[in-house]
Amino acid sequence: MDGKVAPNAVAAVSEARQWERLMEMAEFGAIPGQGVNRACLTPLDRAARRLLIGWGTAIGLAPSIDELGNLFLRHEGSEAGLAPVLTGSHMDSQPNGGRFDGIWGVIGGLEAIQALREAGVATKRPIELVAWTNEEGGRFAPGCMGSMAYAGYRRADTWDSVTDSEGLSFGAELAKQLALEADIPRRGLGVVDGTAPFAYVEAHIEQGPLLESRDLDIGVVEGIQGSRWFQVEILGKSDHAGTTPLSLRQDSVQDMLRAITALNALMHDPADVLRFTVGRIEVAPNTSNSVAERVRFTVDCRHPDKAVLAVRGDAIAGVVQSALRQCRATVTERFHAPPSLFAPLVPGVVEAAAKAQGLGTLRMTSGAFHDAQFMVSLCPTGMIFVPSRAGVSHHPSEYSSPAQLAAGARVLAATLAELANR
Amino acid sequence: MDGKVAPNAVAAVSEARQWERLMEMAEFGAIPGQGVNRACLTPLDRAARRLLIGWGTAIGLAPSIDELGNLFLRHEGSEAGLAPVLTGSHMDSQPNGGRFDGIWGVIGGLEAIQALREAGVATKRPIELVAWTNEEGGRFAPGCMGSMAYAGYRRADTWDSVTDSEGLSFGAELAKQLALEADIPRRGLGVVDGTAPFAYVEAHIEQGPLLESRDLDIGVVEGIQGSRWFQVEILGKSDHAGTTPLSLRQDSVQDMLRAITALNALMHDPADVLRFTVGRIEVAPNTSNSVAERVRFTVDCRHPDKAVLAVRGDAIAGVVQSALRQCRATVTERFHAPPSLFAPLVPGVVEAAAKAQGLGTLRMTSGAFHDAQFMVSLCPTGMIFVPSRAGVSHHPSEYSSPAQLAAGARVLAATLAELANR
Repeated sequence: MDGKVAPNAVAAVSEARQWERLMEMAEFGAIPGQGVNRACLTPLDRAARRLLIGWGTAIGLAPSIDELGNLFLRHEGSEAGLAPVLTGSHMDSQPNGGRFDGIWGVIGGLEAIQALREAGVATKRPIELVAWTNEEGGRFAPGCMGSMAYAGYRRADTWDSVTDSEGLSFGAELAKQLALEADIPRRGLGVVDGTAPFAYVEAHIEQGPLLESRDLDIGVVEGIQGSRWFQVEILGKSDHAGTTPLSLRQDSVQDMLRAITALNALMHDPADVLRFTVGRIEVAPNTSNSVAERVRFTVDCRHPDKAVLAVRGDAIAGVVQSALRQCRATVTERFHAPPSLFAPLVPGVVEAAAKAQGLGTLRMTSGAFHDAQFMVSLCPTGMIFVPSRAGVSHHPSEYSSPAQLAAGARVLAATLAELANR
Repeated sequence: MDGKVAPNAVAAVSEARQWERLMEMAEFGAIPGQGVNRACLTPLDRAARRLLIGWGTAIGLAPSIDELGNLFLRHEGSEAGLAPVLTGSHMDSQPNGGRFDGIWGVIGGLEAIQALREAGVATKRPIELVAWTNEEGGRFAPGCMGSMAYAGYRRADTWDSVTDSEGLSFGAELAKQLALEADIPRRGLGVVDGTAPFAYVEAHIEQGPLLESRDLDIGVVEGIQGSRWFQVEILGKSDHAGTTPLSLRQDSVQDMLRAITALNALMHDPADVLRFTVGRIEVAPNTSNSVAERVRFTVDCRHPDKAVLAVRGDAIAGVVQSALRQCRATVTERFHAPPSLFAPLVPGVVEAAAKAQGLGTLRMTSGAFHDAQFMVSLCPTGMIFVPSRAGVSHHPSEYSSPAQLAAGARVLAATLAELANR
C-alpha cells in the first residue's frame, strides 16, 4: 500500500454522495417497502444505466459496452499499455429485491474512482468500472450471463434463445438494448480481445448474518461456494377435477410433491452446509378445478465442496425420475458455477486496506454467487463485503447503513489505488 | 309428451346449423389445438354474447339481462302470466378449455327453441334461454356466481371485491359489462322479482367417460355431487437461497409440501369416489434463488354424500395448520355447493323424450358442478348430458361429435315442448 497517496483518496470518499446516488438509483423500479424490481434489459434497466453513464462521463470517465451489454466506464492510467484493474457488480435486481444488492458494487466503485480523481491520485494502471448484464437471472435464467461470456466461461450466444415469462428472448432483448446504446463505443469481450484485467475486485453486501452478528465492518472474501441450477418439468394430463377418479389421473402437482420430497431426502445435510431451494413453481393450466397438466420447478443447490456438489447435483435427475408415479419428467441443468477460490493477491490487499483504516475484518466464503466467480480464470480476483441487516437480501427490507457502505467504498478506494499501482 | 307437436320440432333441429354456430363461437378466444380461452367479462366474452344476441333476435327472441349480467333470450308463450321454462348454460371457458363445455348448452338451447318456432310449435309457457355469468370461476373464483345470485343462494354483491390475477375486481368488471350492454332491457334476479321459472333444464357435455364407454347417447342427470373450494395461503419469509441455512428458513414451498401431503392422507378414499385436487399454485416472489415468502394453493374437494363432504372439508384447516413446521397459514373457503338431487319431473321428461327418439339413456350423477345445482331451490331442475370423447373436458381436445350434439338438442327440444305445455 502506498501510504502517501491512498489516505487522500480514502478521505475523499463521500458517504452522502454515495447514499444519495443509491437512493436516486433505487427509484428505477421502486416497489412498496423500499424495494426494487429492476429486471435486466428492461426500459428501467436502460434508464438506470443512462444515469450511471451520466455520472461517469461528468467526472471524465469513458464509457464502452461489449456484445453482452456489459457496460464499462474507464479511468485512464498514467502508463500506457498496462492492463486495467476492474471493479464493479450488476445493476439488475431480484423481482422483489432491495436497494443495495449489486447496485452498491457499481455506485461504490464509481465513488471510489471519483475519490481517487478528486484526491489527485494518479494510478499507473487504468481502472475500469463495470456493470455486468443479468447477474440475478430473475428475468432470464441463469444469472451471471454477462460475466460468464466476458470471461469465456460460456460462448456469447449461449443464451440467445432463453425466454422470459412473457416469451421474449434474451437474444432479441439484448439486440434491442445494444441498438439503443449504439452511441456508446463498442469493445470486445475480455477473453476475446486480450484485454483481460490485471485484477478484479467486487464490492457487495454480504447477504448473510456473519458480519452483523460479530459486529465487524468488512468481509474479506476468499472464495465463493459452488451453485447448480436445474429446471424440472413434469408432464401429466389435464382432467376435470370433479369427474376424474384419482386412480386415473396423471396429476403433475402430485408428482411434483413426490419429486421434491425425494429431493429433500437426497439433499439432507446434518451439518446444514448444503443449500437446497425450490423457489420457483409454475403450474399449467393453473386453475383450481382442473388437474394440472404440467409443472415446472427450479432446484438451486449450493455447497463449498466441489465433490459434494457433483455427487448431489448429478443424482437429481435420477431421483426425480424414480419418484414419479403418474407423469413423465425432464430435468435440465441451467447453471453450474463450480466453487471458486480467490488467489491471495486481492484478498490480501483488501484486508490490509481495511486494517489500515482501523476496520474490523472477517475472512469468509460467499454463500451467494457473484460475477466475481467467473473472473478467477482471467485474473486475480477478490470481493469486499459490508454487513447486511439481519442477513436479509433479495427482499425490499435489505439494508446496509450509509456509514457501512461508506466504509466499504473507502476500503475499495484504497484497494484500487494499491492494485492500480502494481 | 304431446305426441302430435314434438316430432315436428325434433325434426326441425339442424345438426349443421348447431355445429356451425359452435365453430363460429369457438373463434372467440381460440387457442392452439382447437381450444378456447374465453374468460368471463372480457371483450371476448362480450363479443360472444353479442353474436348470441344477434342470432336470438334474428329469430324473434327478446333479450334482457339482470344485475349479474346473466343474459336471457325469451320465446313467448301462448298463455299470459305463466312462469317460463328456462334452459341454457354458460359461455365462459376454462383458460385452457374446449369448444363445448357450457357453450353447447346455450347454442343447443337456441337450436331447440329455433326448431320449435320453425316447426310452428306454440307452447303455453314462455321458454327462456339463459347464459349465466362466470360459471367456470377461472378468472374470478368461485364459479357459478350468476346462477347463485339468480337463485338467491348468495347476495348479488357477494363477489364485488373478488379480483382476477391482474388485480381487477369482479364488481368493476361487471359494471363495465353492464354499461356496455345498457341497450339491452334490464330484468330482476329470478329470486327477487318473483319470476322464478316453472322448470330449468340444462344441456351439457358429460365431462366424464361413462356414456362413451357404454355406447349410450343421453345422460339423464339425477343430481350433482357437492363441491367445496378452499384457498390456502402459507406465509413464510424470503431469504437468499445461497446464504440462509435450511434450519433458519421459513420456506413456504416446503410447508406447502407438508400441507398437501397431510391433505392427501385426509382425503384418502379407497373407493376412489372422493375427488381431491390441488390445481392452482402461486409462489411469491417465485424466483429460483430466493426462498419463497408466500404460497397460495387451491383445494377442490367433491363427493356425492353431504356428510362426507362436511367431515373432510371441515377438517382441512386443522390438517393444514398441524402440518406446518416453519410458516403460518390461513385457509379460506371460497365455494360450497352441497350435493343436489333433482326432483323427478325434469329427469322423467328427459328420459321419456330420449326413449321416444330411440336413444340409449343412462341415469347418472354429475361429477362436475353446474349452474343447475343452484336452480333446485327455485324450481324442478334437470340436465341432459351427451358423450365426451375419452371423458376429457377443460382441455382443447374436448370433443363431442355433431351427431351426438344434435341428438342432445333434439331431446332438449322435445323436453322444452313438453314442459312448456304443462
